[in-house]
Amino acid sequence: MKYAIIGTGAVGSYYGGKLAHAGCDVHFLLHSDYEYVNLHGMQIDSCDGSFHLDHPQVYHDTAEMPQADVVIVALKTTRNHLLKQLLPPLLHKETLVLLIQNGIGPEPELQKQFPELYLAAGLAFICSSKTEPGRVNHQCYGSINIGNYSCKNLQVMERLIADFNQAGVKAYEVEYHEARWKKAVWNMSFNGMTVALNTQTDQLLANPATRELIHRQMLEVIGAAQAVGVQNIDDSFADRMIEMTLNMTPYSPSMKLDFDFHRPMEIEYLYSHAIAEAHSVGYSMPCLEMLEAELKFIEASYLKSR
Amino acid sequence: MKYAIIGTGAVGSYYGGKLAHAGCDVHFLLHSDYEYVNLHGMQIDSCDGSFHLDHPQVYHDTAEMPQADVVIVALKTTRNHLLKQLLPPLLHKETLVLLIQNGIGPEPELQKQFPELYLAAGLAFICSSKTEPGRVNHQCYGSINIGNYSCKNLQVMERLIADFNQAGVKAYEVEYHEARWKKAVWNMSFNGMTVALNTQTDQLLANPATRELIHRQMLEVIGAAQAVGVQNIDDSFADRMIEMTLNMTPYSPSMKLDFDFHRPMEIEYLYSHAIAEAHSVGYSMPCLEMLEAELKFIEASYLKSR
Repeated sequence: MKYAIIGTGAVGSYYGGKLAHAGCDVHFLLHSDYEYVNLHGMQIDSCDGSFHLDHPQVYHDTAEMPQADVVIVALKTTRNHLLKQLLPPLLHKETLVLLIQNGIGPEPELQKQFPELYLAAGLAFICSSKTEPGRVNHQCYGSINIGNYSCKNLQVMERLIADFNQAGVKAYEVEYHEARWKKAVWNMSFNGMTVALNTQTDQLLANPATRELIHRQMLEVIGAAQAVGVQNIDDSFADRMIEMTLNMTPYSPSMKLDFDFHRPMEIEYLYSHAIAEAHSVGYSMPCLEMLEAELKFIEASYLKSR
Repeated sequence: MKYAIIGTGAVGSYYGGKLAHAGCDVHFLLHSDYEYVNLHGMQIDSCDGSFHLDHPQVYHDTAEMPQADVVIVALKTTRNHLLKQLLPPLLHKETLVLLIQNGIGPEPELQKQFPELYLAAGLAFICSSKTEPGRVNHQCYGSINIGNYSCKNLQVMERLIADFNQAGVKAYEVEYHEARWKKAVWNMSFNGMTVALNTQTDQLLANPATRELIHRQMLEVIGAAQAVGVQNIDDSFADRMIEMTLNMTPYSPSMKLDFDFHRPMEIEYLYSHAIAEAHSVGYSMPCLEMLEAELKFIEASYLKSR
């Protein structure tokens, strides 16, 4: 299978890099790092074994890239408006587009623009960051859950999962809605709260007041998930997420890094879409709606002063 | 009537100063400013006409002060634990203690310690700040609503209100619960939110997301007030409070000043007591409970690093 990677950052470089390192035919789209990677290749520093790609297939324009069987989109959702231009050169009739993105709703949003497109969600459980041009540091975790949204070619889904597993990435097929909403339980609480209080996961859990608040916010997401029809989720999932986070290294989620570097935050997909979907069935998440408002205020303050 | 002022800061200096300037017999308790004010007097810079008290009656210990007919307490509620020691020398059998303090519940809390004491609430609508030792800047407003909590001598209530009005302070008698909860509508939203987002009233109202959030928080307080049995308050009160704030100079509420100077914040009386009283009748205020948790986290962060 031929792979295209759009968004060669901390996440796209890792998953694309693992596939390429295992011998898959992977084509990377790069912007700012194009010159550097074209000359020096890509370095993946990884807790699971570091490696270097000497001559990855890199491009700075999707028009120059071959059609792919699987396009992996690992852009921030704040840049999803670019996909309308970026995707078409990469697509044949049965191309699967895997969105390794945060939040609720990137697939239905993209489906509106490409009604026939095969889409799947990639839920990455990974701590990684880009440390310099062409270099990614993968600190821990790394598995990926894949939920079929609209892919009618089940064979390509199976081969994608097999390729990942062969490349050393634990990949599982999961139910789409359940997977996106379960990921939202952690994301909606910790991403926003680390920004609102300018802190990290461990500090939020060390303070009894914010630990209880995080738990309450998780219960709001679980309630919303149940309200929109997700099966297999109940309140105990919040306890498991908190337990897992207590065992993690103190962590700054992606939204906190966006905040630290004064980049746009993924408020729309992480909060607004989830809130709107819950509202559509008459469910509200007051604490997360408050957090959404705080994040909008914070983002407007720093984007204004750029 | 003989007056004692405990807490000669931005609020106590103004109201005590107005009474003294009008010829009332006013005795001030001072701490850090005692030496300065004893030598140089007190200066009230006021939008309603500035004045200077050349020789105010000042003390640094209530044990040296005369018994008073009215004790005006204008301490922050964070220092209310001091009242058990401070008050007794000032009290005769019918002394009225007026608490010009923020939040819900300072009177019932104090009543527990002094079961026979005559208590009233003073709700000050004033923008003032202490600018230097012995000097207060009164920027705008200045009226005071007085709610009888447990004063059985109605004559002293009447005389207090008359003395205020004669001194140029608009004073009105109001229903105690209604007055405290109405004040909480503004206080619980703006005090905490200016801290949580490190901003001022005008910025919160200029951003559509936080303006809606402030409105929502006000509706939570109004709902709690109705749930605990307060009459004469409905949702339109939130619109009036927002309208009033839009017409105010950009303002940092008292909690924001406490935050700016890394002083303890009045979380307990402004938030925790109100939340507990609402809970006692089965009502919850999710956004304000979230704000309480954020404030506890913020306060712990800076008090720890002192």
